[in-house]
Amino acid sequence: MYNLLKGKKGIIFGALDSNSIAWKVAERAHEEGAVFVLTNAPIAMRMGEINELAKKTSSQVVPADATSMEDLENLVEKSLEILGGKIDFVLHSIGMSVNVRKGLHYTNSNYEFTAKGWDVSALSFHRVMNVLYNKKAMNEWGSIVALSYMAAQRVFPDYNDMADNKAYLESVARSFGYFFGRDFKVRVNTISQSPTPTTAGTGVKGFGGFLAYAEKMSPLGNATALECADYTITLFSDLTKKVTLQNLFHDGGFSNMGISDVIMENFNKE
Amino acid sequence: MYNLLKGKKGIIFGALDSNSIAWKVAERAHEEGAVFVLTNAPIAMRMGEINELAKKTSSQVVPADATSMEDLENLVEKSLEILGGKIDFVLHSIGMSVNVRKGLHYTNSNYEFTAKGWDVSALSFHRVMNVLYNKKAMNEWGSIVALSYMAAQRVFPDYNDMADNKAYLESVARSFGYFFGRDFKVRVNTISQSPTPTTAGTGVKGFGGFLAYAEKMSPLGNATALECADYTITLFSDLTKKVTLQNLFHDGGFSNMGISDVIMENFNKE
Amino acid sequence: MYNLLKGKKGIIFGALDSNSIAWKVAERAHEEGAVFVLTNAPIAMRMGEINELAKKTSSQVVPADATSMEDLENLVEKSLEILGGKIDFVLHSIGMSVNVRKGLHYTNSNYEFTAKGWDVSALSFHRVMNVLYNKKAMNEWGSIVALSYMAAQRVFPDYNDMADNKAYLESVARSFGYFFGRDFKVRVNTISQSPTPTTAGTGVKGFGGFLAYAEKMSPLGNATALECADYTITLFSDLTKKVTLQNLFHDGGFSNMGISDVIMENFNKE
Amino acid sequence: MYNLLKGKKGIIFGALDSNSIAWKVAERAHEEGAVFVLTNAPIAMRMGEINELAKKTSSQVVPADATSMEDLENLVEKSLEILGGKIDFVLHSIGMSVNVRKGLHYTNSNYEFTAKGWDVSALSFHRVMNVLYNKKAMNEWGSIVALSYMAAQRVFPDYNDMADNKAYLESVARSFGYFFGRDFKVRVNTISQSPTPTTAGTGVKGFGGFLAYAEKMSPLGNATALECADYTITLFSDLTKKVTLQNLFHDGGFSNMGISDVIMENFNKE
Repeated sequence: MYNLLKGKKGIIFGALDSNSIAWKVAERAHEEGAVFVLTNAPIAMRMGEINELAKKTSSQVVPADATSMEDLENLVEKSLEILGGKIDFVLHSIGMSVNVRKGLHYTNSNYEFTAKGWDVSALSFHRVMNVLYNKKAMNEWGSIVALSYMAAQRVFPDYNDMADNKAYLESVARSFGYFFGRDFKVRVNTISQSPTPTTAGTGVKGFGGFLAYAEKMSPLGNATALECADYTITLFSDLTKKVTLQNLFHDGGFSNMGISDVIMENFNKE
Repeated sequence: MYNLLKGKKGIIFGALDSNSIAWKVAERAHEEGAVFVLTNAPIAMRMGEINELAKKTSSQVVPADATSMEDLENLVEKSLEILGGKIDFVLHSIGMSVNVRKGLHYTNSNYEFTAKGWDVSALSFHRVMNVLYNKKAMNEWGSIVALSYMAAQRVFPDYNDMADNKAYLESVARSFGYFFGRDFKVRVNTISQSPTPTTAGTGVKGFGGFLAYAEKMSPLGNATALECADYTITLFSDLTKKVTLQNLFHDGGFSNMGISDVIMENFNKE
Repeated sequence: MYNLLKGKKGIIFGALDSNSIAWKVAERAHEEGAVFVLTNAPIAMRMGEINELAKKTSSQVVPADATSMEDLENLVEKSLEILGGKIDFVLHSIGMSVNVRKGLHYTNSNYEFTAKGWDVSALSFHRVMNVLYNKKAMNEWGSIVALSYMAAQRVFPDYNDMADNKAYLESVARSFGYFFGRDFKVRVNTISQSPTPTTAGTGVKGFGGFLAYAEKMSPLGNATALECADYTITLFSDLTKKVTLQNLFHDGGFSNMGISDVIMENFNKE
Repeated sequence: MYNLLKGKKGIIFGALDSNSIAWKVAERAHEEGAVFVLTNAPIAMRMGEINELAKKTSSQVVPADATSMEDLENLVEKSLEILGGKIDFVLHSIGMSVNVRKGLHYTNSNYEFTAKGWDVSALSFHRVMNVLYNKKAMNEWGSIVALSYMAAQRVFPDYNDMADNKAYLESVARSFGYFFGRDFKVRVNTISQSPTPTTAGTGVKGFGGFLAYAEKMSPLGNATALECADYTITLFSDLTKKVTLQNLFHDGGFSNMGISDVIMENFNKE
């Protein structure tokens, strides 16, 4: 609509289906004039509808398991080829806790599950940047964004080990972001998004109630997936060149609320 | 360039001269299709070149002392008239410490000066929002931004009582932002900008050295006034509707640095 | 009980009655072997029972309006005399919003009230440190503590302009704390305490409900006034010499909670 | 000296040699009347002088690899036996990056090394609490502390993947701390300590220069290992019962400094 990403080239991880934030980012990036490669884990792609999105956005799909250096190297090489030049933006929207999937309580983790979830959800961001950095695949003033959640800072009991994974992810953004900034003028940030009813999100125990709670706590209500995509576009654009190493809350104000009037009334009714 | 603010109406406080961040915001807002009223304290306007800016951006100027409720009420009323409708965005870029101007050390403040600086730099933001709120002068999904500095969080000895004023300012953004969000769907944020060689900034003792230091600490270097204007435009646009109550660092990464390699080398040379 | 403050000399502001945190600090400091001067505003003293506390803790009372430099200078001079030496610890427990007292909503402040509340609640901390600093009244490794509240960081709608005052207070702790540390090896911190049913606290609108809410949100429950006094003692002791410029949450964990199971259940019941 | 831990029982991880913070904590805890079990990884114990410490503090040593659930279960069972009752305090002072040891740059990590370092430095804290929690081994109002570093929040380029490990560690403190608080009234916190010339610390590249830098940035200078031990004692004592889920900076003020006068002068000299 604004041509904010005209001529920009990108890689978008994690568009599972039309509820995905990454899906919305792809649609919005396309509208804003970007070209990009879509990618997801082979296993996620079999479940998803990514080819439909690819057609809609005139994109190609390159499968990659974000825990495999070989896959990531292939992805970046192919992307440079397909897009005909270096990368301007990358979205990392990947997260999965095996402990959550298997219904294990945080106080009763299976540490192989924990390690797997950490690798997929957090270390994968380091791997992605590692490949981009060492292949010198990013253009100057490029922008890398990963999606996070406020459980990295505060306790949401049902978020389980994803809280710790997000804390690690945000730290990787700072740590790698320093070297990416210093050496390639590339910025790295995370967006800490409202709880969002994606296919992944709704799988978390008690998600519906929590969504309603967050809605009532936030003066502007929860941010939707589409709104998150809009915000992500600004971070990919040339208008935010000096924003880096930040964790940016996109949550209708939730993160800075102690309590809202509505929640208080609700509580007092009891 | 992108029509990001097409049809939007605003009020911009604090464009003193072409070094001002507010000046750059006005120029950029104009380029993005906004119409707005420029305002500044009568005394600042005599020193400044605001009429030149007004001509350049087809704006009108309405003088207002931001510590005077009467002036602010007049400003908002006139603005609604001039712009032919409610306000979509407001920039508060006002700050001044009498203690700094008079060369008084922080440990030796004159409290009348402190109170005056607080009124001008911090309470003025409450006053501005008070008038906008009570006159129901903002459109839904409007955006209010004030400029701040990281001294609100961390110690920069020469920043004197402006540090405390900025802390108050950022708190006002949260406090009033809650009511503005809840009642009018308006968002309120502060931008915590790199040290910037504005006419005001360069007056601070040792500013040049500090600017060089911040440049070397920040992986992307300091953010300029123009880059700050670009960033501000994104916060006024419809792409950031759910960002509120935030203090957003726009500083090339400075705020999340412990130390940079360059600063460390510099230190080791000694 | 532990002789943690044996031989230490202090000044304690703000012991209104036996519900006051400052009152508990005085009792605990006495038990730990400290000697100190009690002080409060003349007007608060008429309402309070400070003489009883003085007797109980073998202390003298020196009235001082914390917004009057003359009073504060007199207080510090008298204290040095009474205690027979320099000061090791100071507690600032002073806060009052005229807007709250008069029932004015935050969006409808009276700015004379706002200025008065700011002077009493926030600037007073600067004044106190100013006098102590310039009179060189503190011993090396002394400790200055002010009581704060989390509304300085997050929105609690009914806390009104006290939120902004606390943000300013915490900033003053950092700003002055730097000079006090550098020049006198004195540390300065704020304690961000749970909502506490003091005579002042219970006056805030909806306090009872909020107290219950905080209790349920905090994994360890709210911190009591006595527990706050215990914590303050550790900050006055020689065991925390290198803790400075910090805002320390003493709140049963509230500050780092996103949501607790109990609050969520409560919400879901609705 | 104060009997602050009289009758309290503990487990102390990580006393390698007399430079270790854990070593100082053991000495101070002994002085304050505590009894405890010392533990370390078998491999670290062969290098260390832990038996000397055990003799000095009348403690027993139970070796345990903190990445082995079997070892940790054995440790906790033995400790309950040796100490004749439940545990009141635990210190986790464990950290090691294989990437750092092998001299691999952050942008060129070996992910097996990364995983190993994460397991040792961060996940181990979850494992320790898991065993304590599920064996119901902690007394009510017990206290668990892990040592951290500010690289969890801000970039220190040479700290490598230990930054990310510390971010994960601090998140685990919050996540597990919630359940430990809710279910057993046990508090969990991390101390974010000044750079400290321990045997581990001095191994980090450029450590000496950085130590000097931090010393000059901090208004009170760096906190020593002994001072950290003193501070840890307060967190184990009954005077801090309601402090939980916190990351507590013990650093002479470094964490809240933007710049100090000394560093600025140093920089300007150049």
